[in-house]
Amino acid sequence: MAADRDRSWSPPTISEVAAEAGVGRASAARTLGGYGYASPELRDRVLAAAEKLGYRTNALARSMSTGISHTLGVIVADIGNPFFAGVVRGISDTSRARGFDTIVLSTHEELDEEKAAIGVLVDKRVDGIIIASAALGRDAVDHITGTVDRGVPVVLLDRAIEHLNLASVVTDNREAARRAAELFIQNGHRRIGFIWGPATTEPVTTRRELSAATSNNLWSDGERLRGYLDALDDAGISFDPALVMTEEKTEENATHSVARMLDLPAPITAILCSETDATTGALRAVRASGLRYPDDVSIIGFDDSSWAAVMDPPLTMIEQPMLELGNRAAEILLDEIDGGNQTQLMHTLESRFIERSSVTGPPPLRSRNP
Amino acid sequence: MAADRDRSWSPPTISEVAAEAGVGRASAARTLGGYGYASPELRDRVLAAAEKLGYRTNALARSMSTGISHTLGVIVADIGNPFFAGVVRGISDTSRARGFDTIVLSTHEELDEEKAAIGVLVDKRVDGIIIASAALGRDAVDHITGTVDRGVPVVLLDRAIEHLNLASVVTDNREAARRAAELFIQNGHRRIGFIWGPATTEPVTTRRELSAATSNNLWSDGERLRGYLDALDDAGISFDPALVMTEEKTEENATHSVARMLDLPAPITAILCSETDATTGALRAVRASGLRYPDDVSIIGFDDSSWAAVMDPPLTMIEQPMLELGNRAAEILLDEIDGGNQTQLMHTLESRFIERSSVTGPPPLRSRNP
Repeated sequence: MAADRDRSWSPPTISEVAAEAGVGRASAARTLGGYGYASPELRDRVLAAAEKLGYRTNALARSMSTGISHTLGVIVADIGNPFFAGVVRGISDTSRARGFDTIVLSTHEELDEEKAAIGVLVDKRVDGIIIASAALGRDAVDHITGTVDRGVPVVLLDRAIEHLNLASVVTDNREAARRAAELFIQNGHRRIGFIWGPATTEPVTTRRELSAATSNNLWSDGERLRGYLDALDDAGISFDPALVMTEEKTEENATHSVARMLDLPAPITAILCSETDATTGALRAVRASGLRYPDDVSIIGFDDSSWAAVMDPPLTMIEQPMLELGNRAAEILLDEIDGGNQTQLMHTLESRFIERSSVTGPPPLRSRNP
Repeated sequence: MAADRDRSWSPPTISEVAAEAGVGRASAARTLGGYGYASPELRDRVLAAAEKLGYRTNALARSMSTGISHTLGVIVADIGNPFFAGVVRGISDTSRARGFDTIVLSTHEELDEEKAAIGVLVDKRVDGIIIASAALGRDAVDHITGTVDRGVPVVLLDRAIEHLNLASVVTDNREAARRAAELFIQNGHRRIGFIWGPATTEPVTTRRELSAATSNNLWSDGERLRGYLDALDDAGISFDPALVMTEEKTEENATHSVARMLDLPAPITAILCSETDATTGALRAVRASGLRYPDDVSIIGFDDSSWAAVMDPPLTMIEQPMLELGNRAAEILLDEIDGGNQTQLMHTLESRFIERSSVTGPPPLRSRNP
């Protein structure tokens, strides 16, 4: 066993140090991480055990020799999105309670900025990184795997990257979208617009083409679209490509797409919006068409906000557990920094469905061009 | 002159280095800052001049010996406020164009977190700091002056601190609030609620007591209240303390305060809201009272958003130049990092008044308890 260890030595875990010192794992983690209270006697035992086993995490090396870091780096795609602002709040609450500060970089959904952001955080010697990556399905993510290889733990947030062997904290996007579309269908709707789908300049006229486009999308957007399609399938409603927006994702394009869908010979009678800007864009189109919700068209959107509650009528919305997402991502990362091993890779948190007054049955058939 | 210099030596400026090297100030700044293009010949001349004069900025020391930092730190009170998210975008756009990355910390309006945040940024060796301080009028700001004393340039954002000798980039809060109140008055209103004023548990029954409370408030909040009072004074309307909210600043308290003001024997007929949460809180109270805007009560709020434009009717709002605020603060800080001297301390940018449909004349006198 000792010989094995010499040949392919792997660093001892925090649990092995704890066992050697005869203390609990949490106490060992606290001492080695340099945060929280540890009695001098306990501290001495843990440090002696760590030295005997050759334990050296980054955190230990930093806190004991090259200076304490105690900082988490967070990379979000767009800090202007209230969703990410809420998640960052959750991360910093949990980090702070465990003695870590949080620094944030925003990439504006650009992969080049994301690569630069990782460089900055590694350069600033953060102890770990939480990232909501701007990478689409087709993009290489060497900058993320390279960071892990350099010994900086990474947790993925909001957007899983399926071929990576990393812990991911996400919401039940697919289930939430399915439930929203299902509510429309239960109310009698069969022409349901989806704002927004995958941005693509390729023609999307079949389910197969849609699926191909989706595989090059953000993971979370793809999941929401799949949930929408699940609900249609369950109800035996055939997919109509004209009802899924494939333009670039901006509020203005959402307005144009919804206006177009409201003007079809068989117009949409319900709209599922996958972002705040998609929702406000859709509302602009509804108003500009001289229509009213929910009588002429029903609406459900991601993500809930104070504004959605004070609209008249108030909007039925999907609320993602932003704080909890942030809390969980920070916990997983901090446990890993403390030397724990990740066992569960995918952590899926439940969204809340907030029913207000923007969903009713479809209007009687109306002729749009009298 | 040389003797004078020896006795009280002050570091040479970037302009002196440029003159010595016979190059433009921008070229010298680029070379010494280590960003952008400089030909080898130009670079050599600038560095020789810098050495001769003993020029050593932090940026130079870092880029030439201890490694390049090229990072700005930004401390905002609440990254969940879309206003700050927009400002951060402006900061990072300008920084990026000049070769700097931006890292952000959010303090949740808590001074202790702000002090910790400054410690983190100094520890991470940022080249300068932009801060929207959570300090109230009564708070000591040694953590800010101490940072400047250690040679890290600081620019104040959104909230001036009047006794500090630092560049501040703010909006015309007082003028914007005055203009909003004036529009109400021009439409015939005389009972105008202000949500929110200074949070205080002291009784506020006189103008003097209000003024005392305001001096312990955030600078920007105080300015908005002063603008509201300016408009009342100009119109000869006497101040009524019952029309200024002094509870802690939350959406829920805004709802309670507006409900109370709508229920006064002489109720308010217009509401000026100084934050997004104040605006949504006010709208909840209006709806709960069975009233409609603008027919029963007129509304104007800070800050504009997509949601305000899709409300029915759309809201008249004040839009602060968020991107421009961020751009300007970054420019000033980067110029200072490059060795420039600040001459102008207060930079006040203009807000935009966006008139939509939430302001009309006051309703005919109504009996609120029939």
